[in-house]
Amino acid sequence: MKIITIGREFGSGGRELAKRLAKELDFKYYDKEIISEIAKSTDLDEDYVNKVFEKGLTSYPLHFGTSFAGLSLLNQNSIDIMIAHEKIIRELAQKGDCVFVGRSADAILNDLNPLNIFVYADTDYKLNRCKKYGEIDAEMKDKEILKRMKQIDNGRAKTHSMFASNAWGDRQSYHLLVNTTGFEDIDDLVPSVAEFAEAWFDNNEKED
Amino acid sequence: MKIITIGREFGSGGRELAKRLAKELDFKYYDKEIISEIAKSTDLDEDYVNKVFEKGLTSYPLHFGTSFAGLSLLNQNSIDIMIAHEKIIRELAQKGDCVFVGRSADAILNDLNPLNIFVYADTDYKLNRCKKYGEIDAEMKDKEILKRMKQIDNGRAKTHSMFASNAWGDRQSYHLLVNTTGFEDIDDLVPSVAEFAEAWFDNNEKED
Repeated sequence: MKIITIGREFGSGGRELAKRLAKELDFKYYDKEIISEIAKSTDLDEDYVNKVFEKGLTSYPLHFGTSFAGLSLLNQNSIDIMIAHEKIIRELAQKGDCVFVGRSADAILNDLNPLNIFVYADTDYKLNRCKKYGEIDAEMKDKEILKRMKQIDNGRAKTHSMFASNAWGDRQSYHLLVNTTGFEDIDDLVPSVAEFAEAWFDNNEKED
Repeated sequence: MKIITIGREFGSGGRELAKRLAKELDFKYYDKEIISEIAKSTDLDEDYVNKVFEKGLTSYPLHFGTSFAGLSLLNQNSIDIMIAHEKIIRELAQKGDCVFVGRSADAILNDLNPLNIFVYADTDYKLNRCKKYGEIDAEMKDKEILKRMKQIDNGRAKTHSMFASNAWGDRQSYHLLVNTTGFEDIDDLVPSVAEFAEAWFDNNEKED
C-alpha cells in the first residue's frame, strides 16, 4: 500500500499540489472529508471540529471557560475528536493507495511508512496566492491575512505536535520539502514530485 | 545563466547527487577544486584551507593560540580565505550553467537567483553510506564516525552563517530539500530532481 501525506503552509498551494499529484498517480485523495467524518462520528458540529483543528487541539481547553464543568466538557470533546480522527485516517489508509492533505496523517500513519512531503513558500507568494484564489475574505487587509496565515500554521503545528515527536515543517519529519515560490501554476511541479514519489516507493517499499 | 547550489549533510550522498545532476543537465560541476583555487590564490596550504572550512571560519581564531600575534595571523588568514572564496565562486558562476556543492555558494550567489537544494538523511543511512564509500578511515568506530559527521556538519553550518542570513539546512534557505534515506542508488533520485530544476528555471527566470 502506498500512502503519501502532504503537510503545507497555508497559502503555499500544497493542497492544489496534493490534489493534482493524486490525479497524476491515480491515488485516492483525502482532505476536508476527514473533518466531516469526524463530525459525524463524534456528533459534533463540522464547523466546531474544523475550529478545533485550526486552533490546535492542545490549546483548546485553555482558551474557554474556567469552571470545572466547562473544562471537563471541552477536554472530552478534544479527546473524542482525537480518537475519531485517528480511527478515520487509519480506516481510509486501508482503502488503497492514497494522498492525505494535512491532518497529521504523517504522524498517525507512521507505522505504515508513508512518503511525507511538506510544501511551503515565501510570505509574499502565499499572500498573493491567498488573494488570487480567495481562500480568505476578499475584504481582509494584507496585515489581517498575514496574521490569519500565521494563526492557521501555528494551529497546524500545535495539532501536529499532539501526534508526532518530530516538529511540523522540520526537514527531519519529511522525505521531500518543496518550495512553491515563483510557480504561477502548481501543475508545473506535478511531474517532478510524481517522479520522486515513484522512485521513493521503489526504494523504500523493498525494505519492509 | 542557470546556477544550482547543493548543500548537504555529511554522508547523505549530496555530492553524488550533485555530480550526477550536473551530468544529466549538462551543467559544469564545482566542488573541491574551489578549495584548491583558494589555496593557490591565498598562498595557503590546501589542507589548511580545507580544515578552516571544516571547522567553520568563525570559530577558527578562538581555537588556536592566545597571544596577540597568533590571533592576528589566524584572523588575517580567515579574512584572506573568505575574500578569495567569494571571488572564486563569483568567477566560476560567470562561466555558464553550473552546479556548486556546498561552500556557501547559495548565500554568496544570492543576487544571481540560484536554485538552492539541500540533501540530508537519517543518521543510520549516513553512517552506512560513510562506511560503504569510505569517506572516513576504515578503522574508525561507529561512535567516532558519528562524532566526525556532527563536527563536519557543525563546521558547514558555521561557515554558512558567515555568508548567509538564513540558517544552513533550514527550509527557508532552499527551494527543494531531498531526504536520501532508503535510496541505495543515488541515481534513482536524479530524474525527479532534474525535472524539478527544469520546472524551477522555467518559472523563476521569467521574473528577473
